[in-house]
Amino acid sequence: MRLLFVGDVVGDSGQQMIKEYLPKLKRKFHPQATIVNGENATKGRGINESVYKSFLQTGADVVTMGNHTWDNREIQDFIGGAKKLIRPANFSANQVPGIGHTIININQQKLAVIDLQGRVFMTPSDDPFAVVQDILEEVKKETDFIFIDFHAETTSEKEAIAWFLDGQVSAVVGTHTHVPTNDARILPKGTAFMSDVGMTGPYDGILGMKRENVIGRFLSQMPTRFEVDETGRQTLSACVIDIDDKTGHAKKIFPVLINDDHPFMD
Amino acid sequence: MRLLFVGDVVGDSGQQMIKEYLPKLKRKFHPQATIVNGENATKGRGINESVYKSFLQTGADVVTMGNHTWDNREIQDFIGGAKKLIRPANFSANQVPGIGHTIININQQKLAVIDLQGRVFMTPSDDPFAVVQDILEEVKKETDFIFIDFHAETTSEKEAIAWFLDGQVSAVVGTHTHVPTNDARILPKGTAFMSDVGMTGPYDGILGMKRENVIGRFLSQMPTRFEVDETGRQTLSACVIDIDDKTGHAKKIFPVLINDDHPFMD
Amino acid sequence: MRLLFVGDVVGDSGQQMIKEYLPKLKRKFHPQATIVNGENATKGRGINESVYKSFLQTGADVVTMGNHTWDNREIQDFIGGAKKLIRPANFSANQVPGIGHTIININQQKLAVIDLQGRVFMTPSDDPFAVVQDILEEVKKETDFIFIDFHAETTSEKEAIAWFLDGQVSAVVGTHTHVPTNDARILPKGTAFMSDVGMTGPYDGILGMKRENVIGRFLSQMPTRFEVDETGRQTLSACVIDIDDKTGHAKKIFPVLINDDHPFMD
Amino acid sequence: MRLLFVGDVVGDSGQQMIKEYLPKLKRKFHPQATIVNGENATKGRGINESVYKSFLQTGADVVTMGNHTWDNREIQDFIGGAKKLIRPANFSANQVPGIGHTIININQQKLAVIDLQGRVFMTPSDDPFAVVQDILEEVKKETDFIFIDFHAETTSEKEAIAWFLDGQVSAVVGTHTHVPTNDARILPKGTAFMSDVGMTGPYDGILGMKRENVIGRFLSQMPTRFEVDETGRQTLSACVIDIDDKTGHAKKIFPVLINDDHPFMD
Ligand SMILES: [Fe+2]
Ligand SMILES: [Fe+2]
Ligand SMILES: [Fe+2]
Ligand SMILES: [Fe+2]
Ligand SMILES: [Fe+2]
Ligand SMILES: [Fe+2]
Ligand SMILES: [Fe+2]
Ligand SMILES: [Fe+2]
Repeated sequence: MRLLFVGDVVGDSGQQMIKEYLPKLKRKFHPQATIVNGENATKGRGINESVYKSFLQTGADVVTMGNHTWDNREIQDFIGGAKKLIRPANFSANQVPGIGHTIININQQKLAVIDLQGRVFMTPSDDPFAVVQDILEEVKKETDFIFIDFHAETTSEKEAIAWFLDGQVSAVVGTHTHVPTNDARILPKGTAFMSDVGMTGPYDGILGMKRENVIGRFLSQMPTRFEVDETGRQTLSACVIDIDDKTGHAKKIFPVLINDDHPFMD
Repeated sequence: MRLLFVGDVVGDSGQQMIKEYLPKLKRKFHPQATIVNGENATKGRGINESVYKSFLQTGADVVTMGNHTWDNREIQDFIGGAKKLIRPANFSANQVPGIGHTIININQQKLAVIDLQGRVFMTPSDDPFAVVQDILEEVKKETDFIFIDFHAETTSEKEAIAWFLDGQVSAVVGTHTHVPTNDARILPKGTAFMSDVGMTGPYDGILGMKRENVIGRFLSQMPTRFEVDETGRQTLSACVIDIDDKTGHAKKIFPVLINDDHPFMD
Repeated sequence: MRLLFVGDVVGDSGQQMIKEYLPKLKRKFHPQATIVNGENATKGRGINESVYKSFLQTGADVVTMGNHTWDNREIQDFIGGAKKLIRPANFSANQVPGIGHTIININQQKLAVIDLQGRVFMTPSDDPFAVVQDILEEVKKETDFIFIDFHAETTSEKEAIAWFLDGQVSAVVGTHTHVPTNDARILPKGTAFMSDVGMTGPYDGILGMKRENVIGRFLSQMPTRFEVDETGRQTLSACVIDIDDKTGHAKKIFPVLINDDHPFMD
Repeated sequence: MRLLFVGDVVGDSGQQMIKEYLPKLKRKFHPQATIVNGENATKGRGINESVYKSFLQTGADVVTMGNHTWDNREIQDFIGGAKKLIRPANFSANQVPGIGHTIININQQKLAVIDLQGRVFMTPSDDPFAVVQDILEEVKKETDFIFIDFHAETTSEKEAIAWFLDGQVSAVVGTHTHVPTNDARILPKGTAFMSDVGMTGPYDGILGMKRENVIGRFLSQMPTRFEVDETGRQTLSACVIDIDDKTGHAKKIFPVLINDDHPFMD
């Protein structure tokens, strides 16, 4: 089984990259399942229903979220019925709407997709190490094909959960920093890992936001409204993961970047 | 001018990689100057004099530090006289020993190397945006060849300072997360940038530390003494930067990784 | 029912204050139960068995802990069998030894004592709002006399949990900042509250630690080993709470300070 | 010289308390100078010109600010010309408008008022320990009557700067936590200190904000818009400081609270 995972889509710019390149990437890599992190898809903050649906129409099978899940208030109106939209599973149990993992059918097989959020330097949440074990106990009854989007700030927490889960899941791929890392690898017991897949959207912003606002904040420490840098060049950050059809272990993981420094090639 | 920069050397394992591969890298890439981040070189915490000197002997021209600068108390005995050792320049002015930048001679040219530390999710320090401007005002009188090791946690602060300095310095390369990023690029006005060059030392630890200790800490949140994972495989993370001899602007930056997934090739 | 609660005992200095004044305070106020926070009792960091036992001998019925619970490694040897020692109940479930609440007999009545830790600006832990509800569901079957030591940094989290539990428990008293607050009050539905009861030990230290070390750290941001300021004057910080014998609601709460600015009077 | 200092005024509720009780407090205590922290005066976030002016008209001589300084955008229009309004002096030098200290005339004497912000668990700022030394060097030429509002989160930073400045300034009084502390004292060399003077405004809110919103945030960790709790009972938190007319050292400091648990008495 081959998976394609696209990192944090930011704003209109990110949506355009999805519309233009997701079909091309699917034609090039032939993934059986496509997962997109959409936590910044609508104006950089959260996601609304129309963008969520457009991702499904363009070819996403599951949309994952992160710390920006609730930033667009529209999500509260449709998350209850959105079966392909998952938010971090370790958000305060029973206090928030939505689901934290889902299992989708791919031909004769099943793929579990789990969304988790880290705790270091982030809003408090339930323990991702404990929550993922509970979920795995349940999910493992149905399938060994398990993909985890671990939305976290620090490399230590990302490496720790990946090594902790090595051999139990097919892949742990980080998101949230908006910068792709150069550490994609298969851990010794068969779990594919990379610390962060990076973002999709403005290539010349700062994490996708207008540079002058972010730099201004660092210079003055005065509060600034960040806005997506919608006018410049664009990037897409993703990874491809090959999973052994018998064991659920990963065989291969490699990054995919599309931007002026990494032009797309068919 | 070509620079070679090697990321956070961790413990004996990292020292061995330096001894084995720094000469090979110099033979392969022929850098005019070699810079090594040594903040974790002695047992993972700080650096002592013998390790510092061994780095110089193996071919480093400047050794940079970071938030672990003071962890090994021996540094206080020799930092005052160590002309090739720099700690973050924005450490509390006049309250700490050592220097934050240096200028070295390379043939007929001069290279300024500046060490800075970020403030987001880190110990308080003086404003790196303000401090770097003060240093540049002085340094620019002597040279346009300027390399900055920006030791910081978040990608936002790293991208912000790089864009802020674009065109004013030859390169801004991040350290501290111990994970190499896949975003090396030349910014529009000529500054080479990558968010993090990654670490040098244990390949199967968590940021170079023994996995069981780090995972144990995440599971129990009980205090744990982290130790360098000195028994397993090893990695080296670096980058090479080519600077235009007339302008001081960067022409090229590319990452260098040496480990089982990226074998060294002459 | 009357309770006496003594805040964070720090080092030998704090132990001496307990030995000298706990008997006097009991003679003066006649509490039915005495609770002492001992998280800094042994050299400022954690507690060992001999200090724990001396607290019980001097008149403590329950000893509570906080973020320093594990700092003295001896605790691991005796916490399993220490029935009057409780650590925060929302420490990672099933991953750490010890208990987070206890019920003691006082004449014909029962008193539940619960220890909880905040999450804002502290080491990650399980959700105290969720955990306390689970505990209350169980404890409420046995008694309505319920005292909570909420060990937390911010006033917002302290006020929030107190108002959240107003009417459900007899008292929520904060610890951890080592500074007594002047906000003791009975909330509208009957829960006694004060943000922080303060510390017991050195009166001229900084949070009980030697001033020069702490100030030195702020000036230089260099790592410093903090030590208890064992030579100077001393303080004791406590509060007394009166609980209605029928309802379990609080009728009264007032602070008790003993130091040169607040001399003890029989 | 006697000073009256009123802690963080929050919203309309806090403004009403100022209007009603500031004149009464001045009649009761006869301070030569009155200082009011107004960082939350306008709807809980910052201050606008009309509220600033109303404070001066009601009897404030200086208005201090804190981390909420810039929350109300109107401030940018009038802070440049507002001579009695000071924001933390250690905000990024030369990057923000306004001033961080002022000297006012009181009969034949001068009083310097300095506003500073802490760095622990707060937005990065310049080093308050370094900045205050620079200011004192200048201010000491004109007067020994010096009052400092230290707006900070942690008790450690507050105690550290007070002890650091002991004997150099008349008083260091903390703000920001919105909870009055019970530690008012004269340090050995003559500086009056209390960790936090507390807030002025809603008495039944959480730090002045509507309880349901704050508790809801802690339960769900979903983003919530906090609003001032304008409907309930009210509190005023202040302190009075007596300074020796010859030395500038403090002779006395005591807290003043006005609320249902501490009724105002003429
Ligand atoms: Fe994101
Ligand atoms: Fe995120
Ligand atoms: Fe490092
Ligand atoms: Fe570091
Ligand atoms: Fe404590
Ligand atoms: Fe504590
Ligand atoms: Fe405030
Ligand atoms: Fe504040």
